[in-house]
Amino acid sequence: MNILYIFAHPEPRSFNSAMKEMAIKTIEEKGNEIRLSDLYSMGFKPALDQSDFLQRKDPDLFNPFLEQITASKEGTFSDDIMSEMEKIKWADVLIFHFPIYFTGMPAIMKGWIDRTFAAGFAFSPIKDRVYENGLLKGKKAMMVISTGAEEDWYSREGRHGDINELLRYISHCTFEYVGMEVLETHMIFGAGKMSSERVTEELERYQMRLNSIL
Amino acid sequence: MNILYIFAHPEPRSFNSAMKEMAIKTIEEKGNEIRLSDLYSMGFKPALDQSDFLQRKDPDLFNPFLEQITASKEGTFSDDIMSEMEKIKWADVLIFHFPIYFTGMPAIMKGWIDRTFAAGFAFSPIKDRVYENGLLKGKKAMMVISTGAEEDWYSREGRHGDINELLRYISHCTFEYVGMEVLETHMIFGAGKMSSERVTEELERYQMRLNSIL
Repeated sequence: MNILYIFAHPEPRSFNSAMKEMAIKTIEEKGNEIRLSDLYSMGFKPALDQSDFLQRKDPDLFNPFLEQITASKEGTFSDDIMSEMEKIKWADVLIFHFPIYFTGMPAIMKGWIDRTFAAGFAFSPIKDRVYENGLLKGKKAMMVISTGAEEDWYSREGRHGDINELLRYISHCTFEYVGMEVLETHMIFGAGKMSSERVTEELERYQMRLNSIL
Repeated sequence: MNILYIFAHPEPRSFNSAMKEMAIKTIEEKGNEIRLSDLYSMGFKPALDQSDFLQRKDPDLFNPFLEQITASKEGTFSDDIMSEMEKIKWADVLIFHFPIYFTGMPAIMKGWIDRTFAAGFAFSPIKDRVYENGLLKGKKAMMVISTGAEEDWYSREGRHGDINELLRYISHCTFEYVGMEVLETHMIFGAGKMSSERVTEELERYQMRLNSIL
């Protein structure tokens, strides 16, 4: 199986980075191939803008959607996007691993979605290539998240609310929208203050989860 | 009234930019003060990282939450963040105006939230300064969004689902979390293909909405 691992934590010695290192090892030991997009260490550019396009359909008025449609046909995205698109095409499973910032992705990961899940490449609403006909059909996606908040804050009755409902804009409106099958999100709550015993437990729990999907 | 207008569209001649220009004029004509954070034209840095901090609480291990708590006490955020925080303190109402990318904010706007709504400045979970005690209590927030999808896609029975539920991670878990009162989101659906008549109508409808809150 080919796994694309998209990772967004700025500290190489963080708990999340330890999880990512263990994941790479586990995936490889099972005989799978892995490619890593470590967004902070790559210095990945988050903002979709004019520089994403080597040629312009309309040089006078920048319409991101129309430029993406054209660049998807012509292969004229900037090199950093083309390179990520190659990884996406290659992958059977995409793992999105990030710490929750305001019940969402850190900006650098949202930017990876905005720029690489381009119109014409990942979806095409004009041709109804969305949801069950999305252009990334056949691939699977999984979120791996850590949050400072404790689990009860993210329960249906909690102060934030049900985390699966709150993340539906990603699982449904992003991943399912481009045609991917969504695997259950792997969650680590209360990640701000963990004992070394809990760190070990959480690494083991994540390893078991990975083994169950590999 | 003091209005902070946070805007995220890369094209100065887009429909969204026309809405923004009209909004500035309307707000000023009513005798209110406005400050603009036009994130693309400012070249605002989206990714929260080590360079956000002029001094480090822990130079060896970068923990964004702990560094934000310290920098909020000491006033040691990088200049671009300090400058946005001054605008936030000054504002009575924050208007977040952006085109929907994957049922969320463009990365550049998510980055503005990640970096300026810092722990210790906008909220403090340790001291229970969240939600009704959030540090930005007394301020109001409003989203102004445009989306390519038609309105029926974002209805309860639609393919995406109820847009107000999908955006709850922003309205509730971000804006209400930091203590702000949330005004009804102003939405423009089907913004990808609008006749000039519809453009005029939408500008008027937005102007009426602004007048109702000023």
